[in-house]
Amino acid sequence: MEKAVLITIGDEILSGNTVDTNSNFIAAELKNIGIKVTQILTISDEIETIKEALNVAFETGDLVITTGGLGPTRDDKTKKALAEYFNDEIALDEVTFNHLKGYMERRGRADILERNKEQAFVPTKSIVFQNHYGTAPCMMMELNGKLSYSLPGVPYEVKPLIKDQIIPYLQERFKLHYIHTRIVSVVGIPESILADKIEDWELALPENIALSYLPVGTRVKLRLTASGDNEEQLKQITEEEIQKLLPLVEGHVIAVSEDKIENILAEMLIERNLTISTAESCTGGELAKMITSVSGSSKYFHGGIVPYATEKKIKILNVSKETIDQFTVVSEEVAQEMAKGCQELFETHISLSTTGVAGPGKGEDGKDIGTVYYTIRINDKAETFKLYMPHLERVDFMNFVSQKVIQDLVSLLINS
Amino acid sequence: MEKAVLITIGDEILSGNTVDTNSNFIAAELKNIGIKVTQILTISDEIETIKEALNVAFETGDLVITTGGLGPTRDDKTKKALAEYFNDEIALDEVTFNHLKGYMERRGRADILERNKEQAFVPTKSIVFQNHYGTAPCMMMELNGKLSYSLPGVPYEVKPLIKDQIIPYLQERFKLHYIHTRIVSVVGIPESILADKIEDWELALPENIALSYLPVGTRVKLRLTASGDNEEQLKQITEEEIQKLLPLVEGHVIAVSEDKIENILAEMLIERNLTISTAESCTGGELAKMITSVSGSSKYFHGGIVPYATEKKIKILNVSKETIDQFTVVSEEVAQEMAKGCQELFETHISLSTTGVAGPGKGEDGKDIGTVYYTIRINDKAETFKLYMPHLERVDFMNFVSQKVIQDLVSLLINS
Repeated sequence: MEKAVLITIGDEILSGNTVDTNSNFIAAELKNIGIKVTQILTISDEIETIKEALNVAFETGDLVITTGGLGPTRDDKTKKALAEYFNDEIALDEVTFNHLKGYMERRGRADILERNKEQAFVPTKSIVFQNHYGTAPCMMMELNGKLSYSLPGVPYEVKPLIKDQIIPYLQERFKLHYIHTRIVSVVGIPESILADKIEDWELALPENIALSYLPVGTRVKLRLTASGDNEEQLKQITEEEIQKLLPLVEGHVIAVSEDKIENILAEMLIERNLTISTAESCTGGELAKMITSVSGSSKYFHGGIVPYATEKKIKILNVSKETIDQFTVVSEEVAQEMAKGCQELFETHISLSTTGVAGPGKGEDGKDIGTVYYTIRINDKAETFKLYMPHLERVDFMNFVSQKVIQDLVSLLINS
Repeated sequence: MEKAVLITIGDEILSGNTVDTNSNFIAAELKNIGIKVTQILTISDEIETIKEALNVAFETGDLVITTGGLGPTRDDKTKKALAEYFNDEIALDEVTFNHLKGYMERRGRADILERNKEQAFVPTKSIVFQNHYGTAPCMMMELNGKLSYSLPGVPYEVKPLIKDQIIPYLQERFKLHYIHTRIVSVVGIPESILADKIEDWELALPENIALSYLPVGTRVKLRLTASGDNEEQLKQITEEEIQKLLPLVEGHVIAVSEDKIENILAEMLIERNLTISTAESCTGGELAKMITSVSGSSKYFHGGIVPYATEKKIKILNVSKETIDQFTVVSEEVAQEMAKGCQELFETHISLSTTGVAGPGKGEDGKDIGTVYYTIRINDKAETFKLYMPHLERVDFMNFVSQKVIQDLVSLLINS
């Protein structure tokens, strides 16, 4: 299997200002075509540091992909490091310059500045992959049969470069192994107990199947990765192993193919012809966002509401003022009435509601930070759950609760 | 300044399955107390690889923090690598075992399995920081005055360990420099033109102030980082430099302190006593989620609605059927009516609406994928904008549009 090393260049990642999402995207794309990322190096924007990282990377990798450090501004030094490392010179590339000119003109900026023109200067040995969504070109270099690609750092530019240009090129160039991945999602068993339950099965897995435990909230994803030359055979042996696994974790498996919980839900809703809506207080729109992030979700998602102000819960969702006065806004009773009102407003089979205190600071009505009630209503049956997660930061809290609500809905649907 | 190297251990990150958010969090926390992260190594879960990474890390770092590889399951090898690297043995730590026992009992799982008990085995030279939100303890080791911390990989466990235990310990132990950071957010100037405009100012910056350009969507964040011994003086010279910068980018600055656009908006809304609501179609709840992710947002956010099904736009937001029939759902006219209906429903000064086609696949009414109209309504004035972003993936599209809508609102508020 070909091995790749990713180098992320940029002080904004080392300083904690930006999360590196490029590496995640690139690693997943490479994996699909059978190239394994063995290391990711995140380094600062200095010529010597970049050269040293290239050295380290080529020790183990057949393929090195760098992101970042190619913008038009002063703190970008990748190109110089590339030229020095590959013992090359930088010169104006006419094709790249014309591409850049066209790019700027289409955006109504015919006045190409000196600083932009600099972006058409590339190492003379490089092969350029033009960037259609930004001004920094992607440069491919080759050294003793090893390949390097240097990309800009902006995720919107990285994705099409990787997907539309680099991946097809690599597939063409290397004769690549097949990789087959399956993910089994397990709920309701702590990781350690799960590990005990499936230990014998795990130890008996064929050598070309690797198992990983990926905990997400209260769910554990078991990932099987099989590699080999025969695609059909890989699919078959993986399926066989999953069939051996399932009886060991009976009653706890919520999906044997899809990965993300919102995709698992999507499959179930479409298959059963069910519609859904959301009424969110403490999750603030995250539930709706998760559900709509799935392509085609308009088939089953009628809509969502975030009635943040208490009087909006009363006015739009018909939550009764008496219930709120008696039990406070963060209560089982209000969660139930929200779900009922939501179901009526959006006319759906299923409705989900959340009410809680995300914090920080003291919550409404003196309720403790981290408390949340959520209701899952399916037709005329409703179940309400309580969670208490005081240690989570606000954004993590919103995400954790949303994940858990959808996960519980999936469990309920399976067992109904 | 003390230097730190972070080591992220785990195949789930190298395979593109999980985004590494721990490094971002840890780097930002260390920076606050004047410790600079010089490198982040992401490596696979193998004993030799981990030992090698420790070697590399200690070459440049005074402090090494590892995350991942401490769970109760089979694919975790960090502890063994630690013991081998520090030439130590692993033994049961009674205090840790009792802590673990209490942790399990509080969760109603008195049956501690052998596999969990293993988690109380630590290198004998280590100092343990107990984990209050999981079963894997944090271990501190010391070698020739250099420090290493080994943490589990789950973000919910990492955050409190870093914030409540490790940061206070490091502050106590090292006499640390002060760091002062300010971020100036600039809109409406491409990065290259901005760089030209402020070149002279940038070159004349004092040596202890570093400048970075951080582009986010169509906004550029200029980050000034000052370091030194005198906190008051740092604040003063940074402020002086910002005062010199402002006239150079007049009319383009939307904030000189806060970082995230939703926080910038929060400040403005509170200061001006304005309330806001959202009506989202193609952003699916992301706008509401961004706004509510700010602590205290209930002061100004009355609520949001995601009327995904067309008839819900008509029923809940009073969008007229005729308008939809004449102009289609994805149109300037529908965006305007959605914003008006939203403002009335939630009784707010400001309302935001989005309607578009996030893709992939052909959109409703044959509209092109990537087209979006959004309206910003402030009291009785409304402005509608169009964006066309066909190259963005669904989730990026939802995020980009939401960022841009809030950014444009901030610009409108500044200039009103």
